[in-house]
Amino acid sequence: MSERKAPASRSDYHAFLPIQTRWMDNDIYGHMNNVVHYSLFDTAVNGWLVSAGLLKPRAGEHIGLVVETGCKYFAEMMFPDIIHAGIRVARIGSSSVRYEVGLFRNDEEHASAEGFFVHVYVDRETRRPKALSDQWRATLETILIRE
Amino acid sequence: MSERKAPASRSDYHAFLPIQTRWMDNDIYGHMNNVVHYSLFDTAVNGWLVSAGLLKPRAGEHIGLVVETGCKYFAEMMFPDIIHAGIRVARIGSSSVRYEVGLFRNDEEHASAEGFFVHVYVDRETRRPKALSDQWRATLETILIRE
Amino acid sequence: MSERKAPASRSDYHAFLPIQTRWMDNDIYGHMNNVVHYSLFDTAVNGWLVSAGLLKPRAGEHIGLVVETGCKYFAEMMFPDIIHAGIRVARIGSSSVRYEVGLFRNDEEHASAEGFFVHVYVDRETRRPKALSDQWRATLETILIRE
Amino acid sequence: MSERKAPASRSDYHAFLPIQTRWMDNDIYGHMNNVVHYSLFDTAVNGWLVSAGLLKPRAGEHIGLVVETGCKYFAEMMFPDIIHAGIRVARIGSSSVRYEVGLFRNDEEHASAEGFFVHVYVDRETRRPKALSDQWRATLETILIRE
Repeated sequence: MSERKAPASRSDYHAFLPIQTRWMDNDIYGHMNNVVHYSLFDTAVNGWLVSAGLLKPRAGEHIGLVVETGCKYFAEMMFPDIIHAGIRVARIGSSSVRYEVGLFRNDEEHASAEGFFVHVYVDRETRRPKALSDQWRATLETILIRE
Repeated sequence: MSERKAPASRSDYHAFLPIQTRWMDNDIYGHMNNVVHYSLFDTAVNGWLVSAGLLKPRAGEHIGLVVETGCKYFAEMMFPDIIHAGIRVARIGSSSVRYEVGLFRNDEEHASAEGFFVHVYVDRETRRPKALSDQWRATLETILIRE
Repeated sequence: MSERKAPASRSDYHAFLPIQTRWMDNDIYGHMNNVVHYSLFDTAVNGWLVSAGLLKPRAGEHIGLVVETGCKYFAEMMFPDIIHAGIRVARIGSSSVRYEVGLFRNDEEHASAEGFFVHVYVDRETRRPKALSDQWRATLETILIRE
Repeated sequence: MSERKAPASRSDYHAFLPIQTRWMDNDIYGHMNNVVHYSLFDTAVNGWLVSAGLLKPRAGEHIGLVVETGCKYFAEMMFPDIIHAGIRVARIGSSSVRYEVGLFRNDEEHASAEGFFVHVYVDRETRRPKALSDQWRATLETILIRE
């Protein structure tokens, strides 16, 4: 129903996080339910933001609100696979960032699914957009796609 | 970062299913996590397919594989809200269908989020695409968008 | 492996909350995964606490930490069932409460599963136990088991 | 409200599986929601059964139905922790097994939570209990508690 691009390779992504699938991830059809992929996207991106010192989930002064997400599914994954989630930054706005995530099953070279989400960063209290700091920009640029 | 259309009204969707939010749907920021929306999409569409007699989750001869999904988030929802999920069909292919879902919070008239997913129907055993039957087409057309 | 009591009736519980099952609740065996039951327990009890004006998830000065939970499973439930979760209070300590929850499938009279959890109420900031107020005690007693 | 045993050490469990926590595991209080622990129990035990060649989730002739579960929570865990789930067998019946699972946070020596679940093995089609084979017994005994 839409043109299907070939799935990307591992070299198209950075900062891989291995994530153990869980028994519950499998649905009645015996494969990872399409919803679970989004849970892995959040985990990979926020995990990287935490480890880079940018995000403090409990106490940081700004938080990322998700305004748009999407995913294309190329191949089944299933428990007990280990999923390697690679990330990259596709666009940096004044207070928003588009992250892209590729999910690679076990040792496979091509992504089984690829998705994105757009974060708008807002003040934790007022929930108003907040410009990204220079530290954020500099760190995000280390995984920005060069075209 | 992208043009934002205004959220749709209830009259743009059909076949509403009320879904009680759960305590766990709220994430650390105190609102429904962006992943949960997709769980509601599946629930609304598959619930309708089951009640229409088209889908038999345990024993049907064909199953719906999800090949693409997406969501735009307009406003927060949170436990203990009741979400009214309305659905519509945007496109019917030979073996695939694009479903769209609007999520309406409690009594609100405008959607808090709108999303879609594309199902390709395949044979349960061979996992090869299978043309939609006349019964499927006729039923899906009852909720097809007219443009 | 343990003595099995017969499942309770609806009249053994109070304050029922109807909860729509979700597509994802079904696991590879085509029934509601055993983990989901606990999500419904939290939802029923915290939903009642919120509606009774006792719990304010985002801003209350004390929060409930779960120290023990358990569940016995008597019969399968599955999407698209609606689960009616009834609750009761089994014991009120100085800062802790034992809640019990029965899950009733659609119109069934006997529980498909019964479980419990023990909340210790603590100060949101210090996370030290905090004695229950008179308002809490009086409200909890309205659903306390009389023996 | 109940006598609290001290949490066990890693040496009390076997066959550890590292499981990456997910962003969604954190609830509104900023720690792993009590429901998630059960998802890790299933993952650890079924993962071991699969790797030991005993369980074939999609095609095996018997499946494990969960009849009772429970958990005691000693300390908070939270994203982005890695949880090391250790398992042991506490009792082997004719067609049932009691598994126990300890969850250890990152490098910690004592469990943050300990739980159990009882599986009754049944025929996939008839759902009637099925005696454990000698191969099952022999393998389960390798992780049986000796007292």
